[in-house]
Amino acid sequence: MDGQIKEMIARVKEKADAAGGLKGVYFVACGGSQAAIYPAKYLLDAEAKDIGAKIYNSNEFVHHPPRSLDARCLVICCSLKATAETVRAVEVAKRSGAITIAMTGSPDTGMAGAGEHVVVYSNGDAPIYSEGNQAKALRIGFEILQQFENYPHYDAAMAAYAKLDDLVESGKKKLRPLAERFAAEYANDAIFYVLGAGPLYGTAYSMANCHLMEMQWRHAVLVHSGEYFHGPFETTDKDLPMILLMSTGATRYLDERVLAFLKTYAGRYMVVDAAEVLGDALDANIAEYFNSVVMVPLERHIVATMAERRGHSMDERRYMWKVDY
Amino acid sequence: MDGQIKEMIARVKEKADAAGGLKGVYFVACGGSQAAIYPAKYLLDAEAKDIGAKIYNSNEFVHHPPRSLDARCLVICCSLKATAETVRAVEVAKRSGAITIAMTGSPDTGMAGAGEHVVVYSNGDAPIYSEGNQAKALRIGFEILQQFENYPHYDAAMAAYAKLDDLVESGKKKLRPLAERFAAEYANDAIFYVLGAGPLYGTAYSMANCHLMEMQWRHAVLVHSGEYFHGPFETTDKDLPMILLMSTGATRYLDERVLAFLKTYAGRYMVVDAAEVLGDALDANIAEYFNSVVMVPLERHIVATMAERRGHSMDERRYMWKVDY
Repeated sequence: MDGQIKEMIARVKEKADAAGGLKGVYFVACGGSQAAIYPAKYLLDAEAKDIGAKIYNSNEFVHHPPRSLDARCLVICCSLKATAETVRAVEVAKRSGAITIAMTGSPDTGMAGAGEHVVVYSNGDAPIYSEGNQAKALRIGFEILQQFENYPHYDAAMAAYAKLDDLVESGKKKLRPLAERFAAEYANDAIFYVLGAGPLYGTAYSMANCHLMEMQWRHAVLVHSGEYFHGPFETTDKDLPMILLMSTGATRYLDERVLAFLKTYAGRYMVVDAAEVLGDALDANIAEYFNSVVMVPLERHIVATMAERRGHSMDERRYMWKVDY
Repeated sequence: MDGQIKEMIARVKEKADAAGGLKGVYFVACGGSQAAIYPAKYLLDAEAKDIGAKIYNSNEFVHHPPRSLDARCLVICCSLKATAETVRAVEVAKRSGAITIAMTGSPDTGMAGAGEHVVVYSNGDAPIYSEGNQAKALRIGFEILQQFENYPHYDAAMAAYAKLDDLVESGKKKLRPLAERFAAEYANDAIFYVLGAGPLYGTAYSMANCHLMEMQWRHAVLVHSGEYFHGPFETTDKDLPMILLMSTGATRYLDERVLAFLKTYAGRYMVVDAAEVLGDALDANIAEYFNSVVMVPLERHIVATMAERRGHSMDERRYMWKVDY
């Protein structure tokens, strides 16, 4: 698997170099798949010296493709099966001359048929997280950094993969009491604020949009930890249910500032801390980039624990795949 | 004013060219100021051929500046007075060798002291919107496109500025019945969904984070129109208050798709349509980029109409500028 992505990026590099170099990497997806590719976009934004990165909702990309799109761009689209607008996004990208990678759940999906390159990721009820959508998107990101810019922490990043699945498993055990307490205390609440920043902003997006809104029909206000103090904090009071995702790494200060405020002004908040889960298992230079690979399964586990208590299955939908939209 | 920004970008170009060309433009701000620079970031994302664009919350930028930051970058920071982390962002950018522009409310602010270049914008209780933060950030964007890439619609864009203030004024009259109805029907609701996409995504951010949460202490769930169907729509029912901002231009399809769904499955929604406000006043090639300059004052006007009815002043705060945070 490692080998497949390494070889694929070598071919991407050949083609991009022939076109004049890699100008940018554009990530395109919807919903949970967009949250899953966010960490790779975040990695390139943070670590690339000369390669731009953008992220798009699929239909925004399809209906308003950026004028910059050309043979010097790599477009990475992600959909488990074949979300119509994400398949169209691959086609729009190909027509522009861009290099395309389709990330998808099996070699037989409509997505797999569309991309110039295809990356299949682990999924389903018992996914291997170290080979899931987030982990593979990140691996593509690290390969790009390594092959185009000789990234100094590439070996440390590759070494991390062997530890991810154990970290999710031990994390579930560590957070079990928290999940139980959350389920007991918040089962009847209709609205939640979900805060995160840096490498966990995509995780906060996933928790709010996919797990609370889609799968539990609870309202969820997503707030960037750094933006909280510039508007949203005015609604905070002792009764409002709030969930703070704390990341490791350089942006942790933003979460700590929120936590200090919550301690004084909030009354019902839960902290889900990546530092507690990761300990010092991963190299400090790259640990933050893996935060979400471990934390998305854990925040989902927390919501799923509440789902059981509520008797509202995470699989229940009223509109998705059921009505026309 | 036009002349000042034109001359400023000419100096930016000289310096960037000497460093090897302009690699990227990074926009940095918090809250309402971040919403105000979003349209310029959107413009560059859509129209620039070779110049990347990023947007950051100030503290995320300060604590985790991107490795790409160097003399080939232009960093545009925006704060009305001197938000501490935004002033620090200017300093971080300067230390990296990047060219900096500080956008601020008067020549005497802490922000004005920090930037290599300074742009002062109209503000206060009766701002001139065509010279406000959004309009000036956009003008910087259009100048960059013109001077670096010979943008074909530059003249049309410049011609639009003379019409913006009249469009806001006539828009307030046109939307008055809508604002009154909104105030009457939604004054007692505690939660709102705000939907938008493309050029109005920043406007939706402003309405949710600044006007509903900060200034009215109402919960507001911000949803991208294209993402709505990939999770958040599961909470929609006949009782949920929803506000759909519809933009003109290529991404309007995303809003129309939401509207079709709301007509069937929602019961209490309000549509605020830029097409109704703008008519055909602006050149079709650039109209979408000015959507938010006109629509932010109008969505604010709608919330302010509700504020009067509720007897909750838009100026009331419980934490901002009052407690330590």
